[in-house]
Amino acid sequence: MKFALRYLPILDWGRRYDRGKLGGDLVAAVIVTIMLVPQSLAYALLAGLPPEAGIYASILPIVLYAIFGTSRTLAVGPVAVVSLMTAAAIGKLGDQGIDHVTAALTLAFLSGAFLVILGLFRLGFLANFLSHPVIAGFITASGILIATSQLKHILGVSASGDTLIEMLHGLWMSLGTINWITLLLGVSATAFLFWVRKGLKPLLLRTGLGGTLSEVGARAGPVFAVLATTLAVWAFDLADRGVDIVGSVPQALPPLTLPSFRPDVMVAMIGPAVLISIIGFVESISVAQTLAAKRRQYIDPDQELIGLGAANLGASFTGGFPVTGGFARSVVNFDAGARTPAAGAFTAVGLAIAALMLTPLIYYLPKATLAATIIVAVLSLVDFSILRRSWACSKADFAAVSATILLTLALGVEVGVSAGVLISVLIHLYKSSRPHMAVVGQVPGTEHYRNVDRHDVVVQKGILSVRVDESLYFANARNLEDRIYDMISRRDDLEHVILMCSAVNAIDMSALESLEAINARLRDRDIKFHLSEVKGPVMDRLKTTHFLNDLTGRVFLTQHRAVQALSDGASTEFSPSRDGVSV
Amino acid sequence: MKFALRYLPILDWGRRYDRGKLGGDLVAAVIVTIMLVPQSLAYALLAGLPPEAGIYASILPIVLYAIFGTSRTLAVGPVAVVSLMTAAAIGKLGDQGIDHVTAALTLAFLSGAFLVILGLFRLGFLANFLSHPVIAGFITASGILIATSQLKHILGVSASGDTLIEMLHGLWMSLGTINWITLLLGVSATAFLFWVRKGLKPLLLRTGLGGTLSEVGARAGPVFAVLATTLAVWAFDLADRGVDIVGSVPQALPPLTLPSFRPDVMVAMIGPAVLISIIGFVESISVAQTLAAKRRQYIDPDQELIGLGAANLGASFTGGFPVTGGFARSVVNFDAGARTPAAGAFTAVGLAIAALMLTPLIYYLPKATLAATIIVAVLSLVDFSILRRSWACSKADFAAVSATILLTLALGVEVGVSAGVLISVLIHLYKSSRPHMAVVGQVPGTEHYRNVDRHDVVVQKGILSVRVDESLYFANARNLEDRIYDMISRRDDLEHVILMCSAVNAIDMSALESLEAINARLRDRDIKFHLSEVKGPVMDRLKTTHFLNDLTGRVFLTQHRAVQALSDGASTEFSPSRDGVSV
Repeated sequence: MKFALRYLPILDWGRRYDRGKLGGDLVAAVIVTIMLVPQSLAYALLAGLPPEAGIYASILPIVLYAIFGTSRTLAVGPVAVVSLMTAAAIGKLGDQGIDHVTAALTLAFLSGAFLVILGLFRLGFLANFLSHPVIAGFITASGILIATSQLKHILGVSASGDTLIEMLHGLWMSLGTINWITLLLGVSATAFLFWVRKGLKPLLLRTGLGGTLSEVGARAGPVFAVLATTLAVWAFDLADRGVDIVGSVPQALPPLTLPSFRPDVMVAMIGPAVLISIIGFVESISVAQTLAAKRRQYIDPDQELIGLGAANLGASFTGGFPVTGGFARSVVNFDAGARTPAAGAFTAVGLAIAALMLTPLIYYLPKATLAATIIVAVLSLVDFSILRRSWACSKADFAAVSATILLTLALGVEVGVSAGVLISVLIHLYKSSRPHMAVVGQVPGTEHYRNVDRHDVVVQKGILSVRVDESLYFANARNLEDRIYDMISRRDDLEHVILMCSAVNAIDMSALESLEAINARLRDRDIKFHLSEVKGPVMDRLKTTHFLNDLTGRVFLTQHRAVQALSDGASTEFSPSRDGVSV
Repeated sequence: MKFALRYLPILDWGRRYDRGKLGGDLVAAVIVTIMLVPQSLAYALLAGLPPEAGIYASILPIVLYAIFGTSRTLAVGPVAVVSLMTAAAIGKLGDQGIDHVTAALTLAFLSGAFLVILGLFRLGFLANFLSHPVIAGFITASGILIATSQLKHILGVSASGDTLIEMLHGLWMSLGTINWITLLLGVSATAFLFWVRKGLKPLLLRTGLGGTLSEVGARAGPVFAVLATTLAVWAFDLADRGVDIVGSVPQALPPLTLPSFRPDVMVAMIGPAVLISIIGFVESISVAQTLAAKRRQYIDPDQELIGLGAANLGASFTGGFPVTGGFARSVVNFDAGARTPAAGAFTAVGLAIAALMLTPLIYYLPKATLAATIIVAVLSLVDFSILRRSWACSKADFAAVSATILLTLALGVEVGVSAGVLISVLIHLYKSSRPHMAVVGQVPGTEHYRNVDRHDVVVQKGILSVRVDESLYFANARNLEDRIYDMISRRDDLEHVILMCSAVNAIDMSALESLEAINARLRDRDIKFHLSEVKGPVMDRLKTTHFLNDLTGRVFLTQHRAVQALSDGASTEFSPSRDGVSV
């Protein structure tokens, strides 16, 4: 039972389901369904797929997440960034004799399988290698790419490209073929949706409508836009005048589909699938945790992987494409009163009804309206303040963010996010490979030992006390050796070197061997090597080798005891100076 | 002048050169020359190149290292592991219409250029990503590969392969074609060389020969073997009976050669060149530092990169192949009394004389003798104790070592060493992504706070004190959040959470944002969030953001002050227990 509870969170909340929760869940489901119909169509368009794929991707995946996921209010489905990554991935498959729809199914299948495997093996920590600033930079750059990619629908021209330059070039070359009616529709829809976003809800509230109804009204803005532009196209025969429309969409429940298991396709898709999975998971879990914290609920990251993985597997067998937890729709779901994942199941029912009944109505829906929906949604993702904030906080983070933004815009989403991860990891390794080290001396009258460069401290003749502010491991072991050898080569009077280990949280075998080497070289020069303030886990590790037997000096509990024991009474006043013996 | 001194260490030692140093340098040069003649031929054979390439690779490179290197006693030239890697790299180029000699020159050129670039940009820290255990495992596996690769010369058969299985399979298939005379010569030479290594020097010392002469005699062992087997082949016409001999070698100084600058060749060689450079540099600098420490000299790692880079560039223009500082020859050089790099220059002169005068004499030298030289030299590299030692010390290091050994044997040197680096980095990131955290309480009667699971400590009602034993950065930021949310979700009585930061050496933007998120979520639950024992650099970083303004609690200098200030007097005795609130 415990096993089932761990892997099937539905057994937990399902048992305690009651009428009070049902009410909240139903209202939330209605609002989210209204929001999702145009959004699903739009993200399918963004992903380069037929519009119905967006609706299909919002039905079974939601139900599967409701069964396996741990968030009570996360709304799963196609989202902007993942749709863009899907478009980039399937766009590259052009010549392999496989259609876009099957490629997207394969991508969803591989993403789902990868997420489930990560979850079963509890490997969710891999997602941590995407640092917050890199994600922020990536999302901002993706938002720009997505908005730019939709301009062609607003202008009524055809253009393509995966990078900003390709897209802008394509648009520039096709400026002569602008369809002015499409442009009028697209700009009107965009302006209307921006206004809905900012001004409609306050207006509805002022007219005396209740909060929930005002919310429904505001969320239905895109539906108004869809209805109005569809009617306009139908009434004035705009499709005959070059306005690109959605056209016929099958009137059916999601079909049973199969991804491609061809080895060449799988190999080509596995890289993008991994990136999509990780980006999707990171986006989803941060939304889930934000919402869960507001109601003191707990999100299990490893179980979330399984929930999202199941959702993607579901998408791959029912005509969808990669999905994840979306920010906007989850917040709407939460605010509208969703209490359990049943709200998601009701949303799925709503979308299934839409798929069965409403698809004929969107025949005349202009693509420009969907593009307007996307542009308005993604421009809220664009936030360059991450550049200013990371610059203020840490130059390393700034470097990673700028590289991510520039490379995403210049070379596309996959290169951009991979480079962001790689740069973060390299910068981290670089920093920890050159640990901060300080020669320390005693703060007069206390038992504290501080950096001789920053404080007026006393150092003892014949003793060099060095504090290293980093765990010791292979990447910095040699650096530690180099710098200690450098320090002792400049001092002729030394009898003792004390390594103060108060900040050494861990040590590995390379670092142990470096300590052995330092000990041996100091012994050659008749200098004794001591350690002070060694932590428990580090001490345990030291005991596994001969190091403590070979150590010429001793291990002291505190730096002060070390200095007291080794000092012959002679001490030198030492003041901070630029030329001091310091590192 | 300072600039010149930095990049031309010869200006430093050259000015102070005197007669006393000349004596030591000359003796060392004679001994090293005697040692290097057969070794150079043998390593050329190992690299799959004509024998003279080995001698050429030992002339100009030594001189260039003497000018640019910082070690006084490092002897540069072809070494076993680098020769094996060269063989593997040029073996793959088979079909590109480029001969092995030119491929080796290109490899040396790219290695040299890469090393010089690393040195000029002070990027030597990159070599640190090769952890000690990974290097040890790699060298052991390489030793086995090298010894196995030479068995065909001892058996007098032809076989090939880059991996252990390929080699053993090739040997097995050719067992029917064994040349028994070659085998006799080879086994005799191997046995003789093993005996020389262990027994000759003590014997010579007992006969009353002086230390230096005994050393020369023992080091000349391979020369004896070369002479004896060459004479035997010549005297008994063994070459006509199928014994494979070195054959004619040009009697000349190193020629002026050019590497290939064809883009496809460069692209194919750049990966192997990078690996060869890094492995060579790591091997070389550890020898240089070991020897320098004995005489209280200092090795500048970045200048060493330039010195080794210059040596490799020299090799590429004078008919050589990739070189590095060798362990055995450097120790011999040092022990024989070399005082300055001039010893290397004299060795170069000795080898130049050998190239001009002695090459006709080695026409009848059997390859089996060279193979015996290699086998005896590399078997001393094989040391499986690294497996036992790493197992005792750290399972993570053990995993990296075993993977390196297995993959090097099974898939070749390049895969092996790349996998070793990758696994080390991943394990490091994995470990630091799950930092050790402890709920702490007060050791009664003291100001110390310790892990509640390990000590009998007192915890205050309403206060959760958590110590995190790792710097906080993107890889563990989310884990910190997860675990704190998990802890507070199990406690209903909490009013204060104190994060004890005594082990946090650094913090990045991701971790700062996680702290902000923790603060916000605790605020939603009316719990105050405090920090204690924050280090200077971390505090500086915290001040760059709004975090300190938004913090619901305070930052305390010590954990004890925090608890005193927040405690309402009520406290609970807490004993270690399995079910305790701990992580």
